Amino acid sequence: MQALELNSGLQYRQDKPIPAVCGDEALIRVKLAGICATDLELVKGYAGFSGIIGHEFVGLVEAVGQEKHRHWLNKRVVGSINIGCGDCEDCQSDGPEHCSNRKVLGIRGHDGAFADYLRLPVGNLFLVPDQVPDEEAVFTEPLAAAVRVLKQLAPLPVKPVAVIGPGRLGLLIAKVLGLAGYDVEVLGRSANSLTLPKHWQLKAELILNVPANHYDYVVDASGQASGFSQALRIAKPRGTVVLKSTFAASEPLDLSKVVVGELHILGSRCGPFDEALVLLQQGNVPVTTMVDGRYSLKDGEVALRRAAQPGVRKILLQP
Amino acid sequence: MQALELNSGLQYRQDKPIPAVCGDEALIRVKLAGICATDLELVKGYAGFSGIIGHEFVGLVEAVGQEKHRHWLNKRVVGSINIGCGDCEDCQSDGPEHCSNRKVLGIRGHDGAFADYLRLPVGNLFLVPDQVPDEEAVFTEPLAAAVRVLKQLAPLPVKPVAVIGPGRLGLLIAKVLGLAGYDVEVLGRSANSLTLPKHWQLKAELILNVPANHYDYVVDASGQASGFSQALRIAKPRGTVVLKSTFAASEPLDLSKVVVGELHILGSRCGPFDEALVLLQQGNVPVTTMVDGRYSLKDGEVALRRAAQPGVRKILLQP
Repeated sequence: MQALELNSGLQYRQDKPIPAVCGDEALIRVKLAGICATDLELVKGYAGFSGIIGHEFVGLVEAVGQEKHRHWLNKRVVGSINIGCGDCEDCQSDGPEHCSNRKVLGIRGHDGAFADYLRLPVGNLFLVPDQVPDEEAVFTEPLAAAVRVLKQLAPLPVKPVAVIGPGRLGLLIAKVLGLAGYDVEVLGRSANSLTLPKHWQLKAELILNVPANHYDYVVDASGQASGFSQALRIAKPRGTVVLKSTFAASEPLDLSKVVVGELHILGSRCGPFDEALVLLQQGNVPVTTMVDGRYSLKDGEVALRRAAQPGVRKILLQP
Repeated sequence: MQALELNSGLQYRQDKPIPAVCGDEALIRVKLAGICATDLELVKGYAGFSGIIGHEFVGLVEAVGQEKHRHWLNKRVVGSINIGCGDCEDCQSDGPEHCSNRKVLGIRGHDGAFADYLRLPVGNLFLVPDQVPDEEAVFTEPLAAAVRVLKQLAPLPVKPVAVIGPGRLGLLIAKVLGLAGYDVEVLGRSANSLTLPKHWQLKAELILNVPANHYDYVVDASGQASGFSQALRIAKPRGTVVLKSTFAASEPLDLSKVVVGELHILGSRCGPFDEALVLLQQGNVPVTTMVDGRYSLKDGEVALRRAAQPGVRKILLQP
């Protein structure tokens, strides 16, 4: 099958075997996949993964490892990305996200979605409602990650929430918070980057216009150390900063504001797929307006370069 | 009067005027002062302060600005270090610690304690109980900062708390948490640094022996970026890291564990003086065993260099 494989460099392959599935696993034919910042970081060497990358997808179940799972066959699905050991304390209580032996689709120890096929345990699968087209369903994973922020914030603060970085993830976070009733302001570095947030009916502002110590709640979805520094700058003392994006710090970070301002920094990662699918079904998150390009798998390298350009939001890959 | 003044370099002066006090202020003759890591950072240029440094002290009130405060005269006192504007929302609700117009004794806009005299509003003063000698009372400020960690942690976790950095602040934090019933483990880089913690009846361990993802609660009082990196390493997913020490980051910090592990980072600064004085009065924190040297003000530069040496804990200054 075709696949984009990372192995000291990214390579388009046509000779990868279709994964064999057994036990609780399902074989899924990928219909559409999305490129996210983590994929770009992986290509740069973050997390040292080698294998097929990609973890945002929608697909069709074509085979199952056990007869008892045959009701999944031909179902259109999305899939959560953490595969826990199932036995440890983490897996038994909080779920597989923090299992120390977990595999993560396209990120850690498990081949991903930039391929004709992938395999996942059926426990990771979520049925896509008929009225949600592939072009929207492929946003389930990042939208779930946006919902996670909602879960972590205090119940409906009366104070405004700033979301730094109007990119592929920040925009989703801002919209999710806005729909939940939060007073959200999207902050970006250029007027251009604020066009789509405004189109999404979100308040938007240039971050350079924001004074220091201005917000009680700040979400950094910039994906950059400089965005996190800005988050620290604009957070009020004893305020909360949700850190959403992983970045390989290239410059020294000054954390003295964290101490002096007694800030609260909250790391935030994966979220609930079921709630993301409900949001897509309701049709209030216009995800398809974020799509800036669609490429075939064999043009994967070009697609990833395009996704890395400033101002580019979602790039989709189609096997 | 004598003073150690920072002004593009530290200088011992003998010609500084005794501060004039008016209104709600008191003039305090310094009996004993302590050097802390913040003083060392200030000398390196952190926070851009110029003026007389020093903020840990015990002294005698020699004058007051108003007749109604004359009951403070000749009283032995310690003093909290933040002087708020008194009018803003922060001052009215949370106290002066986060007032954006605050002055801070020996740190920001207000001359400090490494001098014959200092001035402070009487609202900042705390009477020292007779049974607490100067050598112990001078520890009130850092001990209060240690109590602050206790306030910020969840109510008595059953899980152990690691305190990184068995130095002047870390040791106090560990003892305060231990006295409050927490299961505390002090972590240091050398066997030598763990001698005093053990003498204080605290569990102590080399940090290099601690595996990754080991503690639900970690306090970083190392004062160094490398200590904070260790804190992130040994914190369990969804764990809490209290960041206690300010440091000028000299190397890039990798914060990806904060996101991937969904850690909770809590900045922590000043604490309650009244509770610190109660702890000193009870005599359960053997602070004087932390004293590694005592210098006169005119030898202040030597004293500060000594305080900056690895393994040296509290250095006291006597006018």
